[in-house]
Amino acid sequence: MTRTILSSHSKEIAIGFNEPFVMIGERINPTGRKILAEEMKNGDFTRVEMDTLAQLAAGAQMLDVNAGIPLADEPKILADTIKLVQSITDVPLSIDSSIVAALEAGLEVYQGRPLVNSVTGEEDRLEDVLPLIKKYNCAVVAISNDETGISEDPNVRFEVAKKIIERAQDYGIKAEDVVVDPLVMPVGAINDAGKQVLHLISRLRNELKVNTTCGASNFSFGIPNRNGMNASFISMAMGAGMTSAIVNPLHTEVVQAVRAADVVMGNDPDCAQWLSNYREPPAAGARERSGRRRRRG
Amino acid sequence: MTRTILSSHSKEIAIGFNEPFVMIGERINPTGRKILAEEMKNGDFTRVEMDTLAQLAAGAQMLDVNAGIPLADEPKILADTIKLVQSITDVPLSIDSSIVAALEAGLEVYQGRPLVNSVTGEEDRLEDVLPLIKKYNCAVVAISNDETGISEDPNVRFEVAKKIIERAQDYGIKAEDVVVDPLVMPVGAINDAGKQVLHLISRLRNELKVNTTCGASNFSFGIPNRNGMNASFISMAMGAGMTSAIVNPLHTEVVQAVRAADVVMGNDPDCAQWLSNYREPPAAGARERSGRRRRRG
Repeated sequence: MTRTILSSHSKEIAIGFNEPFVMIGERINPTGRKILAEEMKNGDFTRVEMDTLAQLAAGAQMLDVNAGIPLADEPKILADTIKLVQSITDVPLSIDSSIVAALEAGLEVYQGRPLVNSVTGEEDRLEDVLPLIKKYNCAVVAISNDETGISEDPNVRFEVAKKIIERAQDYGIKAEDVVVDPLVMPVGAINDAGKQVLHLISRLRNELKVNTTCGASNFSFGIPNRNGMNASFISMAMGAGMTSAIVNPLHTEVVQAVRAADVVMGNDPDCAQWLSNYREPPAAGARERSGRRRRRG
Repeated sequence: MTRTILSSHSKEIAIGFNEPFVMIGERINPTGRKILAEEMKNGDFTRVEMDTLAQLAAGAQMLDVNAGIPLADEPKILADTIKLVQSITDVPLSIDSSIVAALEAGLEVYQGRPLVNSVTGEEDRLEDVLPLIKKYNCAVVAISNDETGISEDPNVRFEVAKKIIERAQDYGIKAEDVVVDPLVMPVGAINDAGKQVLHLISRLRNELKVNTTCGASNFSFGIPNRNGMNASFISMAMGAGMTSAIVNPLHTEVVQAVRAADVVMGNDPDCAQWLSNYREPPAAGARERSGRRRRRG
């Protein structure tokens, strides 16, 4: 059974078949967040700290860290952000950048085994990123697009994923350390986007035996009641075999759907997590009776 | 593609692969509802009428009608209830009874092509119910248990379903008119209940090419936040190929999940149903601007 092991200085988790689904919190990302971008640029990590704690409280098992700020020193800011986040939490991180020097700066300071987000099927990305993954013995998100862009044909995306996995193996990186993002298309634009990606997820799992991840919320781009849609989509993606996703854990409907789907997939033994999150407080009378029973026992 | 055609005097619907999921409203059922039972027994259908209208307003495409009241004249009450319900709605009905004479009384008065709920794999049920299905040229729910009870082994339940379909064919009933209920077990009692039933649903669809239905809420029996759990479960069951379910349409989380899963499965072209149900009302300014555009156009 495929397991991608990730760790911090003191904590290890596995993304894997037959493991509870891993929610990677997406909030530490200045894209489209002007105030956060300004603060990070000035070395003020107050908001990063708040985002870290809020996402962990909401149930995230990993956090994505992105420092993509135009005209800023991204390698330094990313490294500083990672150091800060690792100083206040022990969950493993995903180091997220499209700039190779930033990924390297992040890897340099990271304590543990991170997930690098991401490599694509583009030649220059493969050649730049894969040696880093090997050098730092970590895991990588493989996004199934290449020089030709993002294909609407899921079979082409499957072939791109396959190529990345093979190239990674050429560099001595195991398939279990490649977590494929099959690319979730917005259903508002492509009516078959859901069915296609469910089929792709199941092929990636059954044929290539790899873990998968995605930006699940992209599915509902442009349509109303996005959290309601995302909750069903992520449940169904888990049913098809998806093992992790980059999500906003502050969206409680989506987190609830992930926990429920863990139960459905048999990955929450005795529904223990579900019960601990959703058990109604016992009525006063019941509490008293149960107390009495304990005293008698 | 398998399609089970059901109708009333004036409306036809299909349960089918590549069709929107069919929600069969479960509320017209006196089991565990003392007041409703008392009223139905006395020929007072006020509450049945309210249940009919409320379920339709909530999105049910079919209604299940059950008149199982101990020590009452079930055949007469079921027939009267069906006549009443058909006088106020044109959605097709499911005629639900464990008493063959009641099914027959219901079939006698029903206008259109109903779904009969249900036959099992028990010899006497097969011999009593299947001739009625043939005689009235309707469709039937096949519950996958037999004389030995309900097997916890999904492979045994698959074989029971297969036997019922074959026996139905012996009576001249097509497989497309047998809607299999694979039996959803409570996950609180059986940890693998979800995974097992998803696999069973997909085998019923892919190997036997039949439609499926279930009492989805049974999955969450005994655990908290049942609607949250049922919403994910029903989405995943739809992802695995389930085409209808008996649900309480007043549970809005579950109805929302069904509509979302219809979108994911590509069975809501252009997200039209989703948009009509969840589109936010336009802001006043936007409405005005759009009005102005129209006037200019």
